[in-house]
Amino acid sequence: MTESTESMRVSVLRAVEDVVVERRPVPEPGPHEVLVRVSAVGTCGSDTHYYERGRVGEFVVREPLVLGHEASGTIVARGSEVTGREPGTRVSLEPGVPCLACHECRSGRYNLCPGVRFFATPPVDGAFSEYVTLHEQFVHPVPEDLSDEAAALIEPLSVAVWACRKARIAPGARVLVTGAGPVGLLAAQAARAFGATEIVVTDVVDHRLRTAEELVCCTAVNVRHRPLSEFGYEPDVLLECSGNPTAAAEAVRTVGRAGRVVFVGMGGDELPLPLSHVQTREIEVTGTFRYANTWPTAIALAASGAVELDRLVTHRFGLDGVPEALTASARDETVVKAVVYPQE
Amino acid sequence: MTESTESMRVSVLRAVEDVVVERRPVPEPGPHEVLVRVSAVGTCGSDTHYYERGRVGEFVVREPLVLGHEASGTIVARGSEVTGREPGTRVSLEPGVPCLACHECRSGRYNLCPGVRFFATPPVDGAFSEYVTLHEQFVHPVPEDLSDEAAALIEPLSVAVWACRKARIAPGARVLVTGAGPVGLLAAQAARAFGATEIVVTDVVDHRLRTAEELVCCTAVNVRHRPLSEFGYEPDVLLECSGNPTAAAEAVRTVGRAGRVVFVGMGGDELPLPLSHVQTREIEVTGTFRYANTWPTAIALAASGAVELDRLVTHRFGLDGVPEALTASARDETVVKAVVYPQE
Amino acid sequence: MTESTESMRVSVLRAVEDVVVERRPVPEPGPHEVLVRVSAVGTCGSDTHYYERGRVGEFVVREPLVLGHEASGTIVARGSEVTGREPGTRVSLEPGVPCLACHECRSGRYNLCPGVRFFATPPVDGAFSEYVTLHEQFVHPVPEDLSDEAAALIEPLSVAVWACRKARIAPGARVLVTGAGPVGLLAAQAARAFGATEIVVTDVVDHRLRTAEELVCCTAVNVRHRPLSEFGYEPDVLLECSGNPTAAAEAVRTVGRAGRVVFVGMGGDELPLPLSHVQTREIEVTGTFRYANTWPTAIALAASGAVELDRLVTHRFGLDGVPEALTASARDETVVKAVVYPQE
Amino acid sequence: MTESTESMRVSVLRAVEDVVVERRPVPEPGPHEVLVRVSAVGTCGSDTHYYERGRVGEFVVREPLVLGHEASGTIVARGSEVTGREPGTRVSLEPGVPCLACHECRSGRYNLCPGVRFFATPPVDGAFSEYVTLHEQFVHPVPEDLSDEAAALIEPLSVAVWACRKARIAPGARVLVTGAGPVGLLAAQAARAFGATEIVVTDVVDHRLRTAEELVCCTAVNVRHRPLSEFGYEPDVLLECSGNPTAAAEAVRTVGRAGRVVFVGMGGDELPLPLSHVQTREIEVTGTFRYANTWPTAIALAASGAVELDRLVTHRFGLDGVPEALTASARDETVVKAVVYPQE
Repeated sequence: MTESTESMRVSVLRAVEDVVVERRPVPEPGPHEVLVRVSAVGTCGSDTHYYERGRVGEFVVREPLVLGHEASGTIVARGSEVTGREPGTRVSLEPGVPCLACHECRSGRYNLCPGVRFFATPPVDGAFSEYVTLHEQFVHPVPEDLSDEAAALIEPLSVAVWACRKARIAPGARVLVTGAGPVGLLAAQAARAFGATEIVVTDVVDHRLRTAEELVCCTAVNVRHRPLSEFGYEPDVLLECSGNPTAAAEAVRTVGRAGRVVFVGMGGDELPLPLSHVQTREIEVTGTFRYANTWPTAIALAASGAVELDRLVTHRFGLDGVPEALTASARDETVVKAVVYPQE
Repeated sequence: MTESTESMRVSVLRAVEDVVVERRPVPEPGPHEVLVRVSAVGTCGSDTHYYERGRVGEFVVREPLVLGHEASGTIVARGSEVTGREPGTRVSLEPGVPCLACHECRSGRYNLCPGVRFFATPPVDGAFSEYVTLHEQFVHPVPEDLSDEAAALIEPLSVAVWACRKARIAPGARVLVTGAGPVGLLAAQAARAFGATEIVVTDVVDHRLRTAEELVCCTAVNVRHRPLSEFGYEPDVLLECSGNPTAAAEAVRTVGRAGRVVFVGMGGDELPLPLSHVQTREIEVTGTFRYANTWPTAIALAASGAVELDRLVTHRFGLDGVPEALTASARDETVVKAVVYPQE
Repeated sequence: MTESTESMRVSVLRAVEDVVVERRPVPEPGPHEVLVRVSAVGTCGSDTHYYERGRVGEFVVREPLVLGHEASGTIVARGSEVTGREPGTRVSLEPGVPCLACHECRSGRYNLCPGVRFFATPPVDGAFSEYVTLHEQFVHPVPEDLSDEAAALIEPLSVAVWACRKARIAPGARVLVTGAGPVGLLAAQAARAFGATEIVVTDVVDHRLRTAEELVCCTAVNVRHRPLSEFGYEPDVLLECSGNPTAAAEAVRTVGRAGRVVFVGMGGDELPLPLSHVQTREIEVTGTFRYANTWPTAIALAASGAVELDRLVTHRFGLDGVPEALTASARDETVVKAVVYPQE
Repeated sequence: MTESTESMRVSVLRAVEDVVVERRPVPEPGPHEVLVRVSAVGTCGSDTHYYERGRVGEFVVREPLVLGHEASGTIVARGSEVTGREPGTRVSLEPGVPCLACHECRSGRYNLCPGVRFFATPPVDGAFSEYVTLHEQFVHPVPEDLSDEAAALIEPLSVAVWACRKARIAPGARVLVTGAGPVGLLAAQAARAFGATEIVVTDVVDHRLRTAEELVCCTAVNVRHRPLSEFGYEPDVLLECSGNPTAAAEAVRTVGRAGRVVFVGMGGDELPLPLSHVQTREIEVTGTFRYANTWPTAIALAASGAVELDRLVTHRFGLDGVPEALTASARDETVVKAVVYPQE
């Protein structure tokens, strides 16, 4: 394996708003790992958060950190114990590798593993890098006609698939998606793929709402102009993707009997839950934390065309452009997804 | 309500292979019933069974019986207590009205109600008739762009929807459908609507398999020429729609770990279950008996175009043509669904 | 049926804090109803609420109302269509009769029926009365060795059983019950019957906590003296029975990964939900509204001795003593359950 | 770690009916393993099967094999990476260690892992040995008052717990257990702990049935004398523990609407499934293969006294007595569980 003796280019966050491209040795895969040449990496709100504030919640950047956790690439080498992943295989990367042995992992909830090592979450480096290593079972082969960008965006699609599973969306469901950012757009598309036959998407930015209408058959509502409560829409499911506690609480009040509410966007620490509405309708409320066992489903949905990923990519950057990629959406409301291509 | 004073034409099964059109008074709806002018009625294998043998399982025709249970129509009158169903509304008829009060009904499993009264099941008359009465909650309004035939075929689609629910089909599922008759064709379409991304349909008649390929994106396999076991397909879900115990048992042997098997087609009394295959993979096996709470979902799927119903209708008859309708598929393998139109 | 020609004594709430005993005709059962001679009626916080304030939430007492919804009795007559309930049968009364036909009812969630008629909820009279009529399927026969009081308290036990089902309590579960009033005491006992192997009950009144310890093997904690967060107890399930939003929010913060929170006690309209705790642990939060399909289970648990009901009864009153029964627990903290015996 | 340099006594199956005690080096634990001094090992039908026929189904003994997979012991040494298991801790051993990384493992169904290594299943050695090594997460600490025998019998209790979970036994369930051997006795006890309020146990040996009556509150029925169908018992759940296909099929025919059937005892390859009974009642049929995530629950049930394990132990042997232990139940119908104590 000649790769590992060479060096590679890596984009490193050294401090708040201080990102540079460095050279580092290409890592060697462990016994159960593969080495992946990274093709494309989507940028996410959490990457931007680390860049601008140096922390996300309890996770604080204390040492140089490589950002980026929505990645695709090609296997170029394998660890000593790996047999099932051929070099040359194009893959989508599942960025969190759990311990696999704890109670949560053994129960199939590996996203709740306290020992998970997750890309771009201190102190674990991410994928704004020419190469990364990853556990063989967390690189997922993709079909040929899935683009590199789409293969990278299987990660945010997984967030949406997981939310739909938690919400038990099934054919005939009526769904409300609050927030038409990348997560909301994917949640609405995933809800459609799960069989939802009526979807309303809300936001306060018209441009985003138009994108929602273009990407998925839905009713787009700007709640800046007219409160949600006036619409008389009583969804079975609320996928909260706005991260705005006030908007979220208002949306909960529209949900009907035996409905489900899933908080997908990370919001503030507290939400004023309309308890009496929840109790008298026996609404189930939960939140999602990443995902588990979603990659095969997300890949199948993208490959079949049930979900459209390529059209989310609006802006493209090289490894040198990471700072611009991370701040693109703040500067320009037409940005949906900025993608970084680490190879020169 | 002038309708009830008039008479109507009804197709009556008087004995085996003895069906005549009679005149009967138009029935009056009970307090919670509506009167429906019948538009279209699909024929089903069980109708044919009653016509040819005078019985289906334990149900025996002892008095003249009106057949037909896949029906659509228009509300023309309402009982004294009905408020929610406007005359003029086009509806799909759910043909089994349970007692609503027993343990099964109160548990949401009203299809298992021992006191259910089901169209065309002795001694309850069916829908090969100009008018029928039905409980207000069992006539389901349909959108304008759903044809009369499609509104009638919501009934067999409900069978398929119920099977998919029992099988817990979700996005990414790999499904095997055995049997490409009307039930199998609808099961395959419903499976697709539930998110199945890989579907194999088997039969022993090439014509049916071609229909399957045309109606739903699937792989069609003629198991007369090559046994299923040779294909190496390991489905998550088997929807058994052939009613052939030997074929069914062979199909069960292909199902993978934690898979689900649903027997949709009524078969013989016994099936040689491959127990060791089921145990070591912890496969769940069950059967469906009609359906519960499927109409809104089935209507939504048909209305959205996710399931194609009109193309199943291959042959059409008036009330006088009921005998021909009931025997059409035995005479002609191009028959998928024969539909009866009771109005002159 | 001679009963209906006679009159009976009824306790009537005419206005706030104005309850009198009147004579009314014994009611006649409808076709699907039975007439029940009432044996015992437990008093509930909602009865007291109506008595003291004339309303509970959106339900306002506008006309004279009979209170009492936790009742047992003996069938003395049957409506014309009733066949399955013999006169002389001792029964526990399920006090809410839904429409049985709406979408919620047909889905098995009849507790969410918008058309439910519930004892002692305006404008429907309750059971502080010598006789009541009720749908035949909502009177549940009890075994001989279940006392009249226990048969009445099947109603609050049903609240607890429903909460345990919603919380999916299963053998091995660790449960936190906040609030040691009648609901909390029953919730803790039901949790034990569902297999919970570790139960902590909290309250701010020592007397109640001692009762909890006597009735069910549990750890009783007075959170007035020491905050819950200091105990390091991480339950799988929280059954919130205190109705105190602040205590409830604090309790939610102790629940572990993939835990379930069920709000059983009706509290204020809003609760400050610790959203980030809920999201990162994917905790499921819901509330209960009455119950569905709980009577057979609750009767079986009481009959088998798995749950102790008789010991909850601390004070007894005749129909004339209804005002005292309704205010007993406010005057005396040793009151757990005050029971009214309508027969002289 | 001085233990590993010494030798230990091991009972080895060299060929059919050829078991000898050999000396082998004490094994060294791998990085994530602990070394356990074995206290007690229950004998199981599969051990006897290997002893008498050299195979169980597709598993064939081709090289010398150590039998025994129901084991308890004390941790005496830890591998380099183990931190959470203190030497001196008394533990129950979960005898199957899966790969932890495959699709089944990540989905929480590690019992279906194709790469599992299971004690006493060729070519993996079992626990009839003074010492064994095991993955740290598969040795489960037990409370002090749980005996060595009970800690060993957590394994067969896990089989029963898993069956009850698959059958969704909940408070109020009516359960039929066919077969009163060790598995059936534990299944009946576990069903009681899951809340079953009515339990019928069947067998053809009176002695076993008396044991069932003594151990768990149930009705014991000898089906040699009177067919099950005559009893009119309609269970919600059938736990099939007899392994007799004919008896199993007959028992399935008694199960009521929406019932569940779980095949626990490994039987022949085929079962004549009463399909029409299953379909018209929508009964769910499945089988169990070992267990997943059952140890904490099983230990809690045994520790709380909800399940009685010690009284199952009827016969005791040293390592030299393994052949007698394996053939005890064939010679003597009073044998319930024969236990081997590997330490001298």
